Amino acid sequence: MKVCILGTGRVGTHLCRAFMGAGHDVAVWNRSFPAAQQLAKEAGCSVVATLEALPADAEVILLSVKDDALETVARELANVFGKRKSIVAHTAGSKPMSLLDGLFPQIGVFYPMQTFSKGKSLDYSVIPFFVEANNENADTLVRLAESVSNNVYCLSSEQRRFLHLASVFACNFSNHCYTIASEILAEINVPFSVMLPLINETAEKVKTMPPCEAQTGPAARGDVSVLESQTRLLDTNKDFQKIYTLMSRDIMKHNSCNGVKNSPNETDNRCDVAK
Amino acid sequence: MKVCILGTGRVGTHLCRAFMGAGHDVAVWNRSFPAAQQLAKEAGCSVVATLEALPADAEVILLSVKDDALETVARELANVFGKRKSIVAHTAGSKPMSLLDGLFPQIGVFYPMQTFSKGKSLDYSVIPFFVEANNENADTLVRLAESVSNNVYCLSSEQRRFLHLASVFACNFSNHCYTIASEILAEINVPFSVMLPLINETAEKVKTMPPCEAQTGPAARGDVSVLESQTRLLDTNKDFQKIYTLMSRDIMKHNSCNGVKNSPNETDNRCDVAK
Repeated sequence: MKVCILGTGRVGTHLCRAFMGAGHDVAVWNRSFPAAQQLAKEAGCSVVATLEALPADAEVILLSVKDDALETVARELANVFGKRKSIVAHTAGSKPMSLLDGLFPQIGVFYPMQTFSKGKSLDYSVIPFFVEANNENADTLVRLAESVSNNVYCLSSEQRRFLHLASVFACNFSNHCYTIASEILAEINVPFSVMLPLINETAEKVKTMPPCEAQTGPAARGDVSVLESQTRLLDTNKDFQKIYTLMSRDIMKHNSCNGVKNSPNETDNRCDVAK
Repeated sequence: MKVCILGTGRVGTHLCRAFMGAGHDVAVWNRSFPAAQQLAKEAGCSVVATLEALPADAEVILLSVKDDALETVARELANVFGKRKSIVAHTAGSKPMSLLDGLFPQIGVFYPMQTFSKGKSLDYSVIPFFVEANNENADTLVRLAESVSNNVYCLSSEQRRFLHLASVFACNFSNHCYTIASEILAEINVPFSVMLPLINETAEKVKTMPPCEAQTGPAARGDVSVLESQTRLLDTNKDFQKIYTLMSRDIMKHNSCNGVKNSPNETDNRCDVAK
């Protein structure tokens, strides 16, 4: 497949490497030509100096620039787009597809959900890709994603907002629980490192069982006397106390997992277009 | 050192292996004699059939029975204790030392904080041990702990309650954040497995930096428009919405880490008696 990548930051760089590995014909562009040249040299792909020079027969053009440059570059591209037939998709998971509405006939989103660092090499086959398109040509984006990954999902912009919300709970909020633990430990002069083996095990456990089944501790046991005594320990920090009460109550409500068991691999809503 | 371990469950078994590895003279007892015999055979330690038969010159006797059998076994031991000089310590992190008050002249707590499974072999040197004693003989328990671990801390029963509270936040509450994420993902028919690489990275990151510095996401960025839009997404689940609001507010309050930076290894309140 002939693919152009606009932007050679972390996402663009990794996509370029992944596509080259899958045997695609890739051209890259960057506002800074030397940066594009460097990636082209390293990955063995082609490079273009201007948006006008993008190959007219590219099937997919991916906008992989910074979030705040996305609209500007999309507009610049639209100005030189002419009668091309390429699908234009952006790679910004938090942005709706509608950002590209009216600029190109065929638009889409092509979002690899992973924290990329430039230096690290990655196994792209396990990275989840979330694809969206404005018509039946979703097929092309799905085929492109499936050429590098075994985990391709078709999600609307609205569904992707829930995906982002889920990651706030699973990552940002669990990290805040670590922060609170570290402050409690600082009070008794114990280093946070004593908690790392348990934190590690908590993250490991959900690889093989649904998190609601993996739950342990006083709230899951319904141990009211421990819950009351721990609530009192937090009398001097009302914020932590409120979080403690709310989380414990919600864990007790989930005691029977509420019939919802989204296990690591059970649900599976791969792209219909690709089947 | 001559050490007796009463109870051959997971903690007792691992302590026995660790002490044997450190060259101590270990005897084990279990209410079920065959169970004690099996551990003795496997670990190469001695075994006693009755509490009366425990070596009179043992320096330390560890009560490593189930929490709900602890008081019963402690009383039985007290009945046959006579003029022994042994320190008697229990290994139950959630129980106060005062449980042994009046039963023996020298009492203590000897708590290895780890999730033990019987089959798995462990590197004991990295397991944190928390030690408490009722007099200057804490030294003996600290020496015993330091013979197997590089992470020995002296904590009072009251401080140990805060340690337990911290683990509820770091493990049970972070796991509940995973549960909420899995339910949000189930709504959009996406398997929980897509979240595992990010969960893993969140747990990995705090090995090298304090969790409050590792924080990312809309609350940490103070991105009010995303916070408002995500709050609205939770309109149909008021419990999750309350947790979202409370956690986000608390993350914003911690934006500057509040001067508290309990990094993985910085704070270090090792046992004074051992220095």
